[in-house]
Amino acid sequence: MIKAYMASGKGAPFELSEYDPGELGRDEVEIQVEYCGVCHSDFSIWKDEWGMSEYPLVAGHEVVGTVAEVGSDVKHLHEGQKVGLGWISGSCMTCHTCMEGDHNLCESADQTIVGRHGGFAERVRARAEWTIPLPEDLDFAKAGPLFCGGITVFNPLVINEVRPTDRVGVVGIGGLGHLALQFVNAWGCEVTAFSSSADKKEEALKLGAHRFVSSKDPKEVEAVANSLDLILVTINVPLDWEPFLAALRAKGKLHFVGVLPELQLPFFPLLAGQKSVGGSPFGSPATLAKMLEFCARHDIAPMVEEMPMSQINEAFERLEEGKPRYRIVLKNDI
Amino acid sequence: MIKAYMASGKGAPFELSEYDPGELGRDEVEIQVEYCGVCHSDFSIWKDEWGMSEYPLVAGHEVVGTVAEVGSDVKHLHEGQKVGLGWISGSCMTCHTCMEGDHNLCESADQTIVGRHGGFAERVRARAEWTIPLPEDLDFAKAGPLFCGGITVFNPLVINEVRPTDRVGVVGIGGLGHLALQFVNAWGCEVTAFSSSADKKEEALKLGAHRFVSSKDPKEVEAVANSLDLILVTINVPLDWEPFLAALRAKGKLHFVGVLPELQLPFFPLLAGQKSVGGSPFGSPATLAKMLEFCARHDIAPMVEEMPMSQINEAFERLEEGKPRYRIVLKNDI
Repeated sequence: MIKAYMASGKGAPFELSEYDPGELGRDEVEIQVEYCGVCHSDFSIWKDEWGMSEYPLVAGHEVVGTVAEVGSDVKHLHEGQKVGLGWISGSCMTCHTCMEGDHNLCESADQTIVGRHGGFAERVRARAEWTIPLPEDLDFAKAGPLFCGGITVFNPLVINEVRPTDRVGVVGIGGLGHLALQFVNAWGCEVTAFSSSADKKEEALKLGAHRFVSSKDPKEVEAVANSLDLILVTINVPLDWEPFLAALRAKGKLHFVGVLPELQLPFFPLLAGQKSVGGSPFGSPATLAKMLEFCARHDIAPMVEEMPMSQINEAFERLEEGKPRYRIVLKNDI
Repeated sequence: MIKAYMASGKGAPFELSEYDPGELGRDEVEIQVEYCGVCHSDFSIWKDEWGMSEYPLVAGHEVVGTVAEVGSDVKHLHEGQKVGLGWISGSCMTCHTCMEGDHNLCESADQTIVGRHGGFAERVRARAEWTIPLPEDLDFAKAGPLFCGGITVFNPLVINEVRPTDRVGVVGIGGLGHLALQFVNAWGCEVTAFSSSADKKEEALKLGAHRFVSSKDPKEVEAVANSLDLILVTINVPLDWEPFLAALRAKGKLHFVGVLPELQLPFFPLLAGQKSVGGSPFGSPATLAKMLEFCARHDIAPMVEEMPMSQINEAFERLEEGKPRYRIVLKNDI
């Protein structure tokens, strides 16, 4: 049996309970959870905002811990090893997409907290390929949020083949954006932070932005017209995207990582300026490994608020109120 | 003086007249027009559909002819040389975009028929860098439409780095689409033609399509779900783009080259499948040269209806009625 914080239904409080995970699969790993980040997607799944939740729910998909047990076929991981686990916990490994290295886009990928039980628990299971070893010098207490918030904003730099000579904008300075600023700065790029909160300017500059633009002020956005190669949108509220398309240089990309209901775009800038609009979810295991190494080398970490896992319900309240600066991490005290 | 077919105002008939082009610029070329294609953009400019037309108008931007005279600074072109000219007739040559080779995206590019006089004339002028030499073995009488219709659909293969192992869809089998099918087939790709006219199936297959999908039948579009790497949209009427996004594989691109009023897109496929939506206008001089060489090597040419230039008004009528299969070329008889 595995002890875990469970919600019996949509938005119901998390209560300490336990479940029987069955026999460990031959290609699976059981991870002893040390820390688990609280991500906005945990909240969305808890509230069934995307219509795909299953209950009872054990949320938590920003896990770091140590390998407790490995299945009989798992040869590259060993007991006691420090590892992490994110949104995906398994892929088919044989479809064309997996075979191309894009296991994150596998149509039959397992999602850690959808139809499975996640990391707000003493232990959690995943397939070995999604159990990612942590570099030794990474701060264990802060690494959790890299496994969802971090990879979500790191991945676009990889897939868009961002170069250190590029100029990159980051829209939204929150759980994702504050990591994006650090990544893009360490990537060598010129970094522009866009935020509707003018009081975040100082922090944005500290986190790696070279300039700060109030996204509420059309004049400020207009002033950066035709200057950016990539704009990474980390927010999940629809804005008027026209000034952001205008802020892109020819061939520039507007890239979304937050979940929006629909996109309404003026067409002409796309055509005339050869601009494009895209999005991406979670990254692949290989990109996760690259990100962890990059974080260790550049001393990149999320700003976290640590709470004991027993305060999970308070943590979700705090998240709902938009209070965390910027990620909450629950330390396992089960 | 240069004799030319001029429209005195929006939609006014073209009448043979003449204008004084002034002294030939040092970096300019004067081209003796032999043939000039009639493109839908000529029609849009004639009718001032994009609010940027200037009158009196000499339309025509799919020119092939011979060099009549070169400016004193032009060393790489010579009198009598076969050349072509398309939508753009000059770039600043010094902005960042030009310096990167993207002269077609230069913000201060000259457009051949906007504020200048185009190719429905005995002669036309352009800057030397946009006067593109024709390979010797290209059919002079059919080459005109390559300079706008052709490059518009060839360019996306270059900028999207399409590979011969890719699967490519072409939406719309008309002036642009019938060239796109030939290009994509010769590129080595698997080619899917989408058309609302079932009667175009046989021709689409002849032009290079490996399969034909009726874009009016949601079931046929659904049947190709998750199969294409790139979909090239050559039409300029808005459709429901959701089934086309679904027809893309993970990482697939929906690429527009027709002018649409606005884009409304479902968001989730972009995010979950790492798909993107983009567009492009005309190609660069370097890409034009590549296209011409590619056409000569692969025997690619538009299907044209040749008319004498003196029948220009009849040609525009025919275009308005959507009759040409697929491009009209006017042979100069001034």
